[in-house]
Amino acid sequence: MKEMGIGLLGFGTVGAGVVEGLQRNGGLIERRTGLRLVLKRIADLDVDRDRGVAVDRSLLTTDAMSVIDDPEVGIIVELIGGVDVAREFILKSLERGKAVVTANKALLAEHGKELYRAADAAGVDLYYEASVGGGIPIIRALREGLVANRIQSLYGILNGTCNYILTRMEQEGLPFDRVLEEAQEAGYAEAEPGLDIDGLDTAHKAVVLAALAYGQSFDMADVSVEGIREVESIDIGFAGDLGYRIKLLAILKESEGQIEIRIHPTLVPRAHLLASVGGVFNAIMVHGDVAGDTLYHGRGAGREATASAVLGDIVDVARNIARGSPARVPAFVHDDQHGSLRRVEDVRSRYYLRLSLKDEPGMLAKVADILGRHRISIASVFQKEERTGEYVPVIILTHRAVEGNFRDAIKEIDALKEVGAPTVRYRIEDFD
Amino acid sequence: MKEMGIGLLGFGTVGAGVVEGLQRNGGLIERRTGLRLVLKRIADLDVDRDRGVAVDRSLLTTDAMSVIDDPEVGIIVELIGGVDVAREFILKSLERGKAVVTANKALLAEHGKELYRAADAAGVDLYYEASVGGGIPIIRALREGLVANRIQSLYGILNGTCNYILTRMEQEGLPFDRVLEEAQEAGYAEAEPGLDIDGLDTAHKAVVLAALAYGQSFDMADVSVEGIREVESIDIGFAGDLGYRIKLLAILKESEGQIEIRIHPTLVPRAHLLASVGGVFNAIMVHGDVAGDTLYHGRGAGREATASAVLGDIVDVARNIARGSPARVPAFVHDDQHGSLRRVEDVRSRYYLRLSLKDEPGMLAKVADILGRHRISIASVFQKEERTGEYVPVIILTHRAVEGNFRDAIKEIDALKEVGAPTVRYRIEDFD
Repeated sequence: MKEMGIGLLGFGTVGAGVVEGLQRNGGLIERRTGLRLVLKRIADLDVDRDRGVAVDRSLLTTDAMSVIDDPEVGIIVELIGGVDVAREFILKSLERGKAVVTANKALLAEHGKELYRAADAAGVDLYYEASVGGGIPIIRALREGLVANRIQSLYGILNGTCNYILTRMEQEGLPFDRVLEEAQEAGYAEAEPGLDIDGLDTAHKAVVLAALAYGQSFDMADVSVEGIREVESIDIGFAGDLGYRIKLLAILKESEGQIEIRIHPTLVPRAHLLASVGGVFNAIMVHGDVAGDTLYHGRGAGREATASAVLGDIVDVARNIARGSPARVPAFVHDDQHGSLRRVEDVRSRYYLRLSLKDEPGMLAKVADILGRHRISIASVFQKEERTGEYVPVIILTHRAVEGNFRDAIKEIDALKEVGAPTVRYRIEDFD
Repeated sequence: MKEMGIGLLGFGTVGAGVVEGLQRNGGLIERRTGLRLVLKRIADLDVDRDRGVAVDRSLLTTDAMSVIDDPEVGIIVELIGGVDVAREFILKSLERGKAVVTANKALLAEHGKELYRAADAAGVDLYYEASVGGGIPIIRALREGLVANRIQSLYGILNGTCNYILTRMEQEGLPFDRVLEEAQEAGYAEAEPGLDIDGLDTAHKAVVLAALAYGQSFDMADVSVEGIREVESIDIGFAGDLGYRIKLLAILKESEGQIEIRIHPTLVPRAHLLASVGGVFNAIMVHGDVAGDTLYHGRGAGREATASAVLGDIVDVARNIARGSPARVPAFVHDDQHGSLRRVEDVRSRYYLRLSLKDEPGMLAKVADILGRHRISIASVFQKEERTGEYVPVIILTHRAVEGNFRDAIKEIDALKEVGAPTVRYRIEDFD
């Protein structure tokens, strides 16, 4: 039985899950792989707190470098989170020829290029299944199972907190603030929720997936990100009446030699599987040019689900060490054949618009005229009963048009004196 | 650039898809993997038929052994189907130290043990992603992504033909025979549909998955299989009224030291994701003890989807050859820690029963008494308006009870002189 020494950096929620998973299923893993995974050292700033899992105190240290330098440790598992310290530790580990497993999407999204390069230079593995989709083996699916596919599109519900909030807003007709507060109390949202609800966490994951799909390191600053903070119950309701649910989607597309990466609340047809993804669950639908659509669904976060992904990576890396095939599947492969990022102004999409209009004759004609002049064609119009003072909400679903034209048209509409409040807009995704 | 010689056995639908995929995305695969996959030879009994894909005639031969013996061929792709000839060719290939990729579930289900052993003895790869779930990378997910998980249950919609028929029966209220006929005309069902509609194909796939999940070669003869031939529109309708859809499920479970493998039409709650899997699609939901539920969805068959899985396997195998790490992930690992197969008589389940009863006072009491004596407790009863002569359908949903008791109880019920037709029964799955 070959023994693999593991060093854990970060003994938080996921770290404790990994330790527990090893304790519970280490025997199973041994029988399945012929490898004995041995936890040699654990580094954390706090070595006293009870994590609900029994570990020999002698394994614990506050000195991460002593773990990285331990000659018995061949695999470093980075679960510290954050960017600066984690980056430092991973680079040091790679330099010393140690394989690294990480769940750190923020780090990969912001410094992936540097880390992938360092892994490549050292000829060791850098695995990161747990960085996207928790327990869902989506990284493996993308870079191995679907390796023969050009990824024409990918749609992801990648943030459990956002999906939980949107699901509860819909089911209970509650406003965003109220649901967020309850989610925080229930532990489904952080005290500082911005990373989740403003779409940044989703964007980090989208950039990690895009690097795999398109062989490029995309800059976070170039990615169009809208979160769910502004989503109102009224639009969830109207969307529902029209057969849609609002989901925060990460969308990757390749078409006409350009790549789109965007994160925004999106109207998804209720009959589509992604619309059925409720609560804290994540799902990713990938359209490959050979496989067609495949969809992956599971818990996107949490101690155990994420630990499952980390352990899967540890096994993979350990297999490579045992068989002398490190970097068998590179962390990243550059590919310049996929074109550049499409400017968000040039993205084409269908739109849901909610206008707040004075209930006067001729109003709709004015709006239709503005849209028409910006080459936006109307698919359907619904005037709603709900009235706010002298204004009524009017819902317009459009045909596909260019983002930049919408911005201009909406600016013009909102400048009309008969408009009561800024126009609300959501993109509609029909998955065609 | 390392070159990998591929020999294709069987130039049918999937074979043509593989050739087309290689032609279309060979460059992409090269850029992603650094490997050039070169199709060296194709064996088929028919070398003249047009498959809609251009190949150099010199590649074609009717002599499969010449492909297997070709020194330039390192990877044999078996897409002949059937059991005897395919088995022979795969064994010969493995003996000669060639890696094998196959999509042949029937062969693996019936002779897997022998083939896995031969691959192990030769120290080469035997990959079979395409044998289950078409383009869905479920084999990879099970044996790599979820390697740290005890598989507590797995539910699969594994046969597109059956799912297509059941979906259309429900949507259009049509009888089985009529939909089967139309499916045959549309090419969604074979002229000899038994393998699909009698559940055998699903059972083959279930046995392949069970071998991975539980480290045992289960005998097809020991697996409980019911197909969809007897499914009637009336039950699809009644199930719908009660909030269920009827799906042909493969169910694997491990509990109390025993394993269940069974295939049968099942009532699935309509709110469950598996109930939303329509038409020819496949889906597999896996419950791992660490990852929780993960679900995989995609096209379960067809030229392109299956080709995607075959190509993914070819790449994996080629990576192992290039890196000198063949059999890095063994085709099968024996594990005797999972207990034996539970006898189907001992399986516990909830049931939907449709009885055909004379509309007389006291009938229900008689039936309830019989069920009670067999320790089957009733959850709810619905008497339906539809009348067949003097008989009315009565639907009983039961609490969980043992299969053997149901058989005995139904035998007793059907012997009552007030019963008009044999009792129809379906198992209900609540996924708890």
